[in-house]
Amino acid sequence: MYKALFTRSTNITFNRNIDMGLLESSKWRYATKKFDPSKKVSQENVDKIIEAVNLAPTSSGLQPFQLLVITDQKLKEQIVPIAAGQQQVADGSHLLVFAAWDNYTAERIENAYKLITEVRGQAPDTYKSYTDRLKAAYLNRPAEENFAHTARQAYIAFAYAIAMAAELKVDTTPMEGFSNEELDKLLNLQAKGLKSVLLLPLGYHAEDDWLLHLKKARRPLSDLVINL
Amino acid sequence: MYKALFTRSTNITFNRNIDMGLLESSKWRYATKKFDPSKKVSQENVDKIIEAVNLAPTSSGLQPFQLLVITDQKLKEQIVPIAAGQQQVADGSHLLVFAAWDNYTAERIENAYKLITEVRGQAPDTYKSYTDRLKAAYLNRPAEENFAHTARQAYIAFAYAIAMAAELKVDTTPMEGFSNEELDKLLNLQAKGLKSVLLLPLGYHAEDDWLLHLKKARRPLSDLVINL
Repeated sequence: MYKALFTRSTNITFNRNIDMGLLESSKWRYATKKFDPSKKVSQENVDKIIEAVNLAPTSSGLQPFQLLVITDQKLKEQIVPIAAGQQQVADGSHLLVFAAWDNYTAERIENAYKLITEVRGQAPDTYKSYTDRLKAAYLNRPAEENFAHTARQAYIAFAYAIAMAAELKVDTTPMEGFSNEELDKLLNLQAKGLKSVLLLPLGYHAEDDWLLHLKKARRPLSDLVINL
Repeated sequence: MYKALFTRSTNITFNRNIDMGLLESSKWRYATKKFDPSKKVSQENVDKIIEAVNLAPTSSGLQPFQLLVITDQKLKEQIVPIAAGQQQVADGSHLLVFAAWDNYTAERIENAYKLITEVRGQAPDTYKSYTDRLKAAYLNRPAEENFAHTARQAYIAFAYAIAMAAELKVDTTPMEGFSNEELDKLLNLQAKGLKSVLLLPLGYHAEDDWLLHLKKARRPLSDLVINL
């Protein structure tokens, strides 16, 4: 791994004896194009990635998504053609599917705040005026508008999963390019009130991955940032 | 700060002598409701948060957004009413505005891949078939559809900024709730081909922030995760 570690960066000197923070692990990571299917991510590491997903901040703390963790090899292979033939879906040891709520409902909002008051030892109606405002805002909007919002929250959790994996030196391939409708059907997501948003295969790169040793390119900060 | 550090978590034992990884810093962070306006985030820390934004992964590596870093107090105060009166916008020492491209254009796609080939020392046409596919996919879609996509990429960068700030023990308030149209107008974003998506005030919490000492609530993993 260390060879990759040292070549997968633009301008940082790594010290393999110290833990890497987010900046260093972000320079290390890349969108893996080819996994080594013989290498499996440990359950311990998968659990940490799941925990990062669960800790990601979301709008009003609603966490409006579920995380599907697929290890069944046959099922992963069925998803390859749905994901434009991207073989990483089958060759990573775990496939994460981020599926967002298809809509907000009164029950979903109430359940989230039931949990919050329980964890905090508060009276059940502590946040009633707040949840009433959420319901007034969300429950009269079209489902597509609410799904656009829940899907955005899934992107935050997705980012946390990618960052956590990189901290653990687990390779990932962030993926948006797949047929959402076909995947929803295969995984029976509609019955669960969910719609697929993102895929994240986890694993370890193959040594002949063409992207492995290419430099990461990022915009100059002068181009990215406007100071006011 | 350590008092807050120890109370701002659900179930982890912190060791103040070791650096915190993403899980520990995510348990530490919370959506700050009140900043202490006398405390400023150092330029060194702001620079690291900006670097994390720049390192965030994005679809096809296009980084389809700009980051506005606002320190002008008058301007921050003008944004408070646009952000539903949320005083954190003015009381944080820095206000980050994530503004996504209002559309994809051939020039934007070409510029991104010009940079990539330059950084990697590759021939300018190395990714031509790939950028042709991107153009075919994006340039015939309505601007709103492309903006929905660029805005989602901004959420990934937003997540990286939140995570980086937490690693540095900088407080943040992730915000979606503001009038995008009014902010776009105030910041003249349309002329730059941008639309505002997210706000992130940076600073240090006030000791009497009502949320500071309340427990973070997250769904049980059995509710979040579906194993297949």
